[in-house]
Amino acid sequence: MSLDRVSRRRLLGVAGAGALAGAAGIGGFQIADARQSGENGDDGYPFHGEHQSGIVTPAQDRLHFASFDVTTESRDDLISLLRAWTDAAAAMTSGRAVGSASATGYDSPPADTGEALGLPAAGLTLTFGFGATLFEKEGKDRFGLRGRRPKALRRLPHFSGDNLDPARTDGDLCVQACADDPQVAVHAIRNLARIGFGTVSVRWSQLGFSRTSTTSTAQSTPRNLFGFKDGTANVKAEETADLEKHVWVPADELTPSSAWLAGGSFLVARRIRMRIETWDRTSLREQEGLIGRTKGVGAPLSGGTEFTEPEFAQVGGDGKPLIAVDSHVRLAHPSENQGVRMLRRGYNFTDGNDSLGRLDAGLFFLAFVKDPRTHYIPMQSALSSHDSLMEYLTHTASGLYAVPPGVPDGSLVLGADGTPVTTDDSPYVGEGLFA
Amino acid sequence: MSLDRVSRRRLLGVAGAGALAGAAGIGGFQIADARQSGENGDDGYPFHGEHQSGIVTPAQDRLHFASFDVTTESRDDLISLLRAWTDAAAAMTSGRAVGSASATGYDSPPADTGEALGLPAAGLTLTFGFGATLFEKEGKDRFGLRGRRPKALRRLPHFSGDNLDPARTDGDLCVQACADDPQVAVHAIRNLARIGFGTVSVRWSQLGFSRTSTTSTAQSTPRNLFGFKDGTANVKAEETADLEKHVWVPADELTPSSAWLAGGSFLVARRIRMRIETWDRTSLREQEGLIGRTKGVGAPLSGGTEFTEPEFAQVGGDGKPLIAVDSHVRLAHPSENQGVRMLRRGYNFTDGNDSLGRLDAGLFFLAFVKDPRTHYIPMQSALSSHDSLMEYLTHTASGLYAVPPGVPDGSLVLGADGTPVTTDDSPYVGEGLFA
Repeated sequence: MSLDRVSRRRLLGVAGAGALAGAAGIGGFQIADARQSGENGDDGYPFHGEHQSGIVTPAQDRLHFASFDVTTESRDDLISLLRAWTDAAAAMTSGRAVGSASATGYDSPPADTGEALGLPAAGLTLTFGFGATLFEKEGKDRFGLRGRRPKALRRLPHFSGDNLDPARTDGDLCVQACADDPQVAVHAIRNLARIGFGTVSVRWSQLGFSRTSTTSTAQSTPRNLFGFKDGTANVKAEETADLEKHVWVPADELTPSSAWLAGGSFLVARRIRMRIETWDRTSLREQEGLIGRTKGVGAPLSGGTEFTEPEFAQVGGDGKPLIAVDSHVRLAHPSENQGVRMLRRGYNFTDGNDSLGRLDAGLFFLAFVKDPRTHYIPMQSALSSHDSLMEYLTHTASGLYAVPPGVPDGSLVLGADGTPVTTDDSPYVGEGLFA
Repeated sequence: MSLDRVSRRRLLGVAGAGALAGAAGIGGFQIADARQSGENGDDGYPFHGEHQSGIVTPAQDRLHFASFDVTTESRDDLISLLRAWTDAAAAMTSGRAVGSASATGYDSPPADTGEALGLPAAGLTLTFGFGATLFEKEGKDRFGLRGRRPKALRRLPHFSGDNLDPARTDGDLCVQACADDPQVAVHAIRNLARIGFGTVSVRWSQLGFSRTSTTSTAQSTPRNLFGFKDGTANVKAEETADLEKHVWVPADELTPSSAWLAGGSFLVARRIRMRIETWDRTSLREQEGLIGRTKGVGAPLSGGTEFTEPEFAQVGGDGKPLIAVDSHVRLAHPSENQGVRMLRRGYNFTDGNDSLGRLDAGLFFLAFVKDPRTHYIPMQSALSSHDSLMEYLTHTASGLYAVPPGVPDGSLVLGADGTPVTTDDSPYVGEGLFA
């Protein structure tokens, strides 16, 4: 997949004048076409490609994440859903409305719910994942998929500090919607949920209002709700060798039954509530000591600037390490974790307040790794046991999902009216799992 | 109050070189100054002025609203809080951090929580209001204010369709934080709550992810989660005569004891949950009939374009009105409501989902009116009884607040280091109430 945004002009170019003429309709027709009128047109990221978008794509500002349970027992219905989601995702990520211009009339519900009409693509990406319970639940095979589950795909173990809400944990499917406009991200999840009515229901969902990671060297480092820069040492799109080593699942590490995941990834989702009020009463010295970096610039306490490598061996005048042994930056560093790295894509969240007036706020942690058994579980075990920062954190929701590779590039065919033409042969997300 | 944004350059100009020199410090000093470094500087709206900002200010994209209960019985502590909030609001709305550069050291908690360091003012406005319970609660006087309560300030009556959560209703004080960057709005509420620790606690709060109103003719009309344009007929900043008539409380309608509210307003806050999934299954014909406007363009069903006045007398070929008698646009129109208008400032919200997988989403309605007894209660009574749209709506939270006038312009004095200099004589928000 290219990181370049698809030019809307280029997309329209394929369809020619037909697409523009379509925008002159009225009523239902007008609605279906309004998002491609070009009035507010910007570029979008292509949905199709070798890998799914929304992983190495420069982290967008806003998030709506949803986990779904499949409510049907029909394998065909599940496949139909994934086909319909693929079509809708291709439309919405390029700034078009769901459904074709002529699909619905005045006496039917509009194919698209409408709140994103007139808005550009806003950098929307939609990233789909499969939970362990899609393959097997309570000991029973589901959809004939039991034998296709990758070994690494199972419920995450309990970590100390976990206080998970069962209603906000796991799920058969997940969709990560990222966009620079939250209205566009919320619209996307809502329309996917609507398409899935009768086949899936939303199990839990989470909005994130501000990114806490950078996935490209072109982005500046944002801050989490502890007030610290977050994601300085993240794996970035430009580090292609490290992406191969740490993010994409390699074909040669998969058994034939799970070969469908080659070129995909694993998504770890954790809702981490922060004890904001307690944190805000600790001294700057203690805050920086717990993190291991300065608050202003984000430099390691061993010196330098934000992007200086931390020097863990350095000691101060008192003979103690400048970066404490129980600091977050040390415990999370690759040197303490067999060299593993993660591609993080987290978001700050605030969900109102609790009954004591404390903000229900924190970090919705999202990370893509090639294997959670080597790239997440050992690190999180160490952090939850030794990281002094854990005093200020509670993990309240959790999910692990296998993220299939992208829908092949070049498989998108546009009809004369500019909407995708799909047939029973059109590729869809996760298709390899059902082959 | 001018609608022009204050130039950060101008603000810095007052302070001169001192402010810039301050930015070269380290540790705690560096943090306090980082937001005025100019690196990401944009303009902000002035906090001071005849009226509070955040009312006629062009509606920003994002909202964090919070209601507070006062936990002290000390009138002096309450006044001290309002002074401190005034200082903090003046700082944050101009893109500066809370607290002066030299106020805190390395062994104290930083004066500012830090997550907005490096971000511009982002159009932040902070608008403060007083609930009826600030004056009297359970029959008891509070802070010697019982006699100062404006007659119109009391709990809103029960409307049919209300299903209010008591934990998300009313409150002694409220703060509306609007900004174009949600991180800036959330940072502001958090820091005000933190300043108020021991004096107030958050009673309830609400994030809004997308504006649903226009308060200036320069803004385009956004869409609510029904997919319709919202706020087309809103009172706008440019309609100064209507602002006087419908929004600002006139001095000559107040008794001497409530004269402190002259030039202020009343804020009605209502969390309106939408039955999204049911709505999405109704036909386009029914949706447009319920609203009384087309979904695409937003034109009244009597014809024309978005800004054409609806013609309620027009009938169709079947002899029925083109705009139904129970349509929302008709029931909410000034012609059906003794000519009254409101200045609306609502936001779309999505707070995850309920246990049935339905989105917990809708409209957080905010409106400024000169008197809720004439400008809100009659209309809401009519809507809740007759509006067919109510089938898709439930009001789940509610509040009414008296919004004092602005803190006088010109009262902001900056010291040599660029931070505001306040004394016991400095004006503060709501000061007239305590005179």
